[in-house]
Amino acid sequence: MPKANSWLSKKKKMWSDNKVTHLYLLLVCFMFALHANSVSVERSTYIIHTDISSMPKTFTSLQQWHSSIIDSLRPTNTPFSDGHHSSPALAYSYENAAHGFSAILSQQELETLKKFPGFVSAYSDKNVTLDTTHTPEFLSLNVVSGLWPASNYGEDVIVGIIDTGVWPESDSYKDYGMKAIPARWKGTCESGQEFDSSLCNLKLIGARYFNKGIVAANPGVNISMNSARDTQGHGTHTSSTVAGNYVSDVSFFGYAKGTARGLAPRARLAMYKVIFDEGRYASDVLAGMDQAIADGVNVISISMGFDGVPLYEDPIAVASFAAMEKGVVVSSSAGNAGPPLGTLHNGIPWVLTVAAGTIDRSFAGTITLGNGQTIVGWTMFPASAFVENVPLVYNKIYSACNSSKLLSEAPTDAIIVCEETGFLEDQLNLISASNFRGAIFVSKDTELFELGGVSCPGVVISPEDAPAVLNYAKIGNRSFASIKFQQTVLGTKPAPAVAFYTSRGPSPSYPGILKPDVMAPGSLVLAAWFPHDYTAQIGSNVLLSSDYTMISGTSMACPHASGVAALLKGAHPEWSAAAIRSAMMTTANPLDNTLNPIRDNGLNFTIASPLAMGAGQVDPNRALDPGLIYDATPQDYVNLLCAMNFTKNQILAITRSNSYSCSSPSADLNYPSFIALYNNETASYVQTFNRTVTNVAEGAATYKATVTAPKGSTVVVSPEKLVFEKKYEKQSYTLTIKYTKDDEENVSFGALVWIEESGKFTVRSPIAVSPFLTSV
Amino acid sequence: MPKANSWLSKKKKMWSDNKVTHLYLLLVCFMFALHANSVSVERSTYIIHTDISSMPKTFTSLQQWHSSIIDSLRPTNTPFSDGHHSSPALAYSYENAAHGFSAILSQQELETLKKFPGFVSAYSDKNVTLDTTHTPEFLSLNVVSGLWPASNYGEDVIVGIIDTGVWPESDSYKDYGMKAIPARWKGTCESGQEFDSSLCNLKLIGARYFNKGIVAANPGVNISMNSARDTQGHGTHTSSTVAGNYVSDVSFFGYAKGTARGLAPRARLAMYKVIFDEGRYASDVLAGMDQAIADGVNVISISMGFDGVPLYEDPIAVASFAAMEKGVVVSSSAGNAGPPLGTLHNGIPWVLTVAAGTIDRSFAGTITLGNGQTIVGWTMFPASAFVENVPLVYNKIYSACNSSKLLSEAPTDAIIVCEETGFLEDQLNLISASNFRGAIFVSKDTELFELGGVSCPGVVISPEDAPAVLNYAKIGNRSFASIKFQQTVLGTKPAPAVAFYTSRGPSPSYPGILKPDVMAPGSLVLAAWFPHDYTAQIGSNVLLSSDYTMISGTSMACPHASGVAALLKGAHPEWSAAAIRSAMMTTANPLDNTLNPIRDNGLNFTIASPLAMGAGQVDPNRALDPGLIYDATPQDYVNLLCAMNFTKNQILAITRSNSYSCSSPSADLNYPSFIALYNNETASYVQTFNRTVTNVAEGAATYKATVTAPKGSTVVVSPEKLVFEKKYEKQSYTLTIKYTKDDEENVSFGALVWIEESGKFTVRSPIAVSPFLTSV
Repeated sequence: MPKANSWLSKKKKMWSDNKVTHLYLLLVCFMFALHANSVSVERSTYIIHTDISSMPKTFTSLQQWHSSIIDSLRPTNTPFSDGHHSSPALAYSYENAAHGFSAILSQQELETLKKFPGFVSAYSDKNVTLDTTHTPEFLSLNVVSGLWPASNYGEDVIVGIIDTGVWPESDSYKDYGMKAIPARWKGTCESGQEFDSSLCNLKLIGARYFNKGIVAANPGVNISMNSARDTQGHGTHTSSTVAGNYVSDVSFFGYAKGTARGLAPRARLAMYKVIFDEGRYASDVLAGMDQAIADGVNVISISMGFDGVPLYEDPIAVASFAAMEKGVVVSSSAGNAGPPLGTLHNGIPWVLTVAAGTIDRSFAGTITLGNGQTIVGWTMFPASAFVENVPLVYNKIYSACNSSKLLSEAPTDAIIVCEETGFLEDQLNLISASNFRGAIFVSKDTELFELGGVSCPGVVISPEDAPAVLNYAKIGNRSFASIKFQQTVLGTKPAPAVAFYTSRGPSPSYPGILKPDVMAPGSLVLAAWFPHDYTAQIGSNVLLSSDYTMISGTSMACPHASGVAALLKGAHPEWSAAAIRSAMMTTANPLDNTLNPIRDNGLNFTIASPLAMGAGQVDPNRALDPGLIYDATPQDYVNLLCAMNFTKNQILAITRSNSYSCSSPSADLNYPSFIALYNNETASYVQTFNRTVTNVAEGAATYKATVTAPKGSTVVVSPEKLVFEKKYEKQSYTLTIKYTKDDEENVSFGALVWIEESGKFTVRSPIAVSPFLTSV
Repeated sequence: MPKANSWLSKKKKMWSDNKVTHLYLLLVCFMFALHANSVSVERSTYIIHTDISSMPKTFTSLQQWHSSIIDSLRPTNTPFSDGHHSSPALAYSYENAAHGFSAILSQQELETLKKFPGFVSAYSDKNVTLDTTHTPEFLSLNVVSGLWPASNYGEDVIVGIIDTGVWPESDSYKDYGMKAIPARWKGTCESGQEFDSSLCNLKLIGARYFNKGIVAANPGVNISMNSARDTQGHGTHTSSTVAGNYVSDVSFFGYAKGTARGLAPRARLAMYKVIFDEGRYASDVLAGMDQAIADGVNVISISMGFDGVPLYEDPIAVASFAAMEKGVVVSSSAGNAGPPLGTLHNGIPWVLTVAAGTIDRSFAGTITLGNGQTIVGWTMFPASAFVENVPLVYNKIYSACNSSKLLSEAPTDAIIVCEETGFLEDQLNLISASNFRGAIFVSKDTELFELGGVSCPGVVISPEDAPAVLNYAKIGNRSFASIKFQQTVLGTKPAPAVAFYTSRGPSPSYPGILKPDVMAPGSLVLAAWFPHDYTAQIGSNVLLSSDYTMISGTSMACPHASGVAALLKGAHPEWSAAAIRSAMMTTANPLDNTLNPIRDNGLNFTIASPLAMGAGQVDPNRALDPGLIYDATPQDYVNLLCAMNFTKNQILAITRSNSYSCSSPSADLNYPSFIALYNNETASYVQTFNRTVTNVAEGAATYKATVTAPKGSTVVVSPEKLVFEKKYEKQSYTLTIKYTKDDEENVSFGALVWIEESGKFTVRSPIAVSPFLTSV
């Protein structure tokens, strides 16, 4: 049962580590409970990568092989499995996303297994961290021109969502207007507890669930929703953001009213539920991605990530390599651990890593003072509160709004004016627990404006607007005001801004590639929700549920990018995952709607660095026709892996195949961005990057380089002119950067922009100079 | 500013005398304030009826004549008017609804005026008492057959609403689908404060306002909204109930969701605002009706009435006589002073008097107990409260729910179970001021279910359902429950029932005619509202506004009947007002949806008498084709007036014309119902009624009489068979009732039903035997 606390209510709008901590605690409890009945040998879940080339010819499938391996570990006369780890047991056999399996093993059994021919690597199962409809307009998507019509709204594209499941009854999954399912689709809708396969339709074309990893880690656990049905809302929100159908008259308690739809409103959705109330395990994530690839999805959207793991033990990195090989775009969330540097997850060279930004929309309450003055403040109070000609209370006794005892003595048939104290959260909580008719707070708390949550009929005004209210309220007993709630203001400036919480690069798992790649809307995104949760609160006791909710996080940004990727896949079915990512990056917008550089809400509104937002805000219509692309083949990524300090088997865990060569190791991946790192050892550096660009526009084109060097650096591009005579022609260039260590460990940044002579195309790559942070 | 109190909030849902008392107080305040500045001669407003035949030929208009009368009262050298009663002044000249004027006069000036040729009568201005969308379905209106298609949804009919004004921006007044305004329309849209004539359209075709009576009574008063704009909501609600256009997706905070529309969704509306925040005066009401008749309305809907006035001093009675002469149906509300007998207003022989009933709809919350049991209770808590698996608190300390001190010590993260104590209102107030997550009350409080208003997340269950909850809750700490709000249950039985508050006959102004005439839905009617008021409440401080609201009263029943009358006028433009009323009465349904006699919520659910509901629930489709009608001509009504103990001038005030003859006085009006009265003087009575019915069906028809005699009476009908050879043929019969006085002053009742041989038509008239209550 949720705690009736407004701040808690506010906090829960972001999928943060709080939730994860809670789940850990839950797991610890489960484990204690179960240990009493468990047998003496301690077993736990491992993910084991195998070399398919070592599979004995007697086996006709990986699954058969893997079963035999586990069987061989089992002493004779042991019961096959009693569900309580009394013997080794196979959880999943992975064939697509990885070659390998997950199994419940003792330490000793693991050691035995390591000696088997074909063993590549093994690591413990681990927990994943989960990282929403004006956004299509904000991203300039429209029915007249550009990516929507060009892609037929994503109709032929299938997006696999790796998440908490789906609430299939949501209007966002209705399939009106949808045509037959693409013939290549091999996926299915699995029936399970409270989820009949008939819940699927031409929109929701697949629904599967994976929890063997949970069961393995918690033998005897009761999976409370053993189906693809969502019991957390997250998967319903992300999937409806990617490809929800059109639903009219949607709002969040009167705010953000309009027609809800996903970024790719005609694309198909397949849900792979890997997160359950009982746990969130790597082995299940890997199983979900494995199946998504086998089913034939075009895009995988995964709003979660593993922190502090090397690429070869990161199931998303492993599985997305296989996806990339098949041309499947994997779009992932950067994480919500910002603003410190080096906090990012999913910084995987072959996936799209998405940062979160704000939307040009704010939720407002209009205050009309008795003197006729009007002030627009911020609020998301979830009801049509009627506050008309109500007296203002403003005096030194009450207006610090920091004592429930003092506040309980104030007249409540009034609007309390709370002064700026720097403790807005506490003031909101106190006033929510009181009985005032209304409240006016003074603050510019970015977190509140990005996360929402106001459970008293109050409005937050800026310190700039405060004097008008305070001076009028000072007149005492004769002062009064009205407040109108449920107002939505569009065109808020500046927007976007980098969300304060978005995780920042460099990527711990590989800092040599500039991550994140792009930014997409992530703060207060409106999308579908499930009914068994509260989404807003009034006072200290009235919790409210809703069919649609606004929540914040890179988890909400990722599905925006996934939707754009799906549209691009629809418009350019022949493009590789790297080409789609390149198009999104080189056309991304580094400017906000004031035409100034995008600012960072997490770093005191300073200009955002590429380590916060990648190349900038994704710009779908421009991405449709990027001019040039930076492509990369599977072998290019292998060359990168070979340049890392990985063992052969660590690489094989990712590549699954010995047919790749490690003869040309290269850390210089053909990536549409540049990062130069410094450490404490030397004071000046030179780094040269080689890049090859492919002309994807029709006919000949000539481009010239324009460089903005990062502060304290010089950048040389050679040649400075690229001449293409036809489509698909490739040209190469080098970019050399001379830079020095910054003693204050600041990040400096610039950009290389290739400008096509006619001005039709500008192909921009961010350049960052960053301290090298310890990698995993 | 409204008081934040849930019971007050609940009470305000009904337009009752509370509101009037408040206005009286307000007026008293105004008068005190103004007396300080007033001159020594006391003047006040009088309504004066004049005899048009006495108007000197030198005058070309009544207005000119009336002005000259007032001028002659004014001493020479007196300023014309300074707005402060320093000299006599004309307020209105009435030409249509009455022949006369209202004027501010001193007692002495009034005496002078009485000696003028043409003076008929004079009386002091007085205050009027003010008395919605599944109801069309409940009344069986449908697009396939019956009155809606037959009347073209009222398209050619104009309904004048005498009320508090209109909020023209409401979606209910949008004119999509509306054709050109009928050419005969002479009305207009007057611009005024915050009301531009451009706000009118093909739906809202007229808007006028009348407040000279207020200004006369309160010289110097500032009319805060000097236009037809509604500042009280009442007029917006009633007019949208009559003829609001189709508006989809309307609800009252999630309850009663659906498409809102009036009973006559294509009829035209003209608003005559006669009630202002500053007062509600007979002189203004008369002016509004005067203008409505002049403008050419077909139906006047007037949800207000004057209590304790004789017909000749009741502006509604006076004006509606003129309306009736022109074939305009006047539909009025019976009042909200029930259940005592003799409380009815608007019991005027030539108007339709409408009682209020309940609707077959209830608003529910479903409780699911931890043991799986499900109980549906009553609630209108105005939000999607999330109450899932919350512990129940049920113990002797808290569960009387009668002490805020005790309750403050209970755990609030819980559902409090409140035992039935007979003080539901108090319990609701206490719990609303507390912080429980939810509440369960036990009661069968009819008033709550008819008026609504629950400001805590609670549900009221019946005493029958209580044991299931209480026995389960007894198990203590382990008991928990979920509650789902915002549920609407249709088909509630039994329905309709007579609303507890509806005023009962006999009519004090003329008990010899059985009143009310019919019943229509009046409890918790959903219709349009205005934004500057609260319509619901959460807790003790959060007031909520809404575009549509559910309120209760005969004020809400009247516009239902007005809408049906408009549809009948559309279908039968040749029918007189009496014919339309007759059709509505003789086809009204005395049975509820269990096919048992309609019960009376105000009288302990006993079978409702005709003094509560008239002939029964209005049945629009049957009224379209009633078989027979009881018609009446203006002279018939004059004959009735002549039979009353009225002076010539009292009659002339109503009839405005000496061309009527008083040669055939008769108390035996050709009315479609019968009332026999007894007093204390004698113990047994015989009364004979003469009636004439007109065949309005096509061709020949034969009817036979079936009588159910009131208890303790014998009824003889002669002849018992009526044979009609063609349409419009008339036949007469007599009904003789022998009855005795009931010592307990009970009302007994029965009916005469004329049944057409084929069974196609049944023409029913209620018969009541009632104590004679003192008339005004």
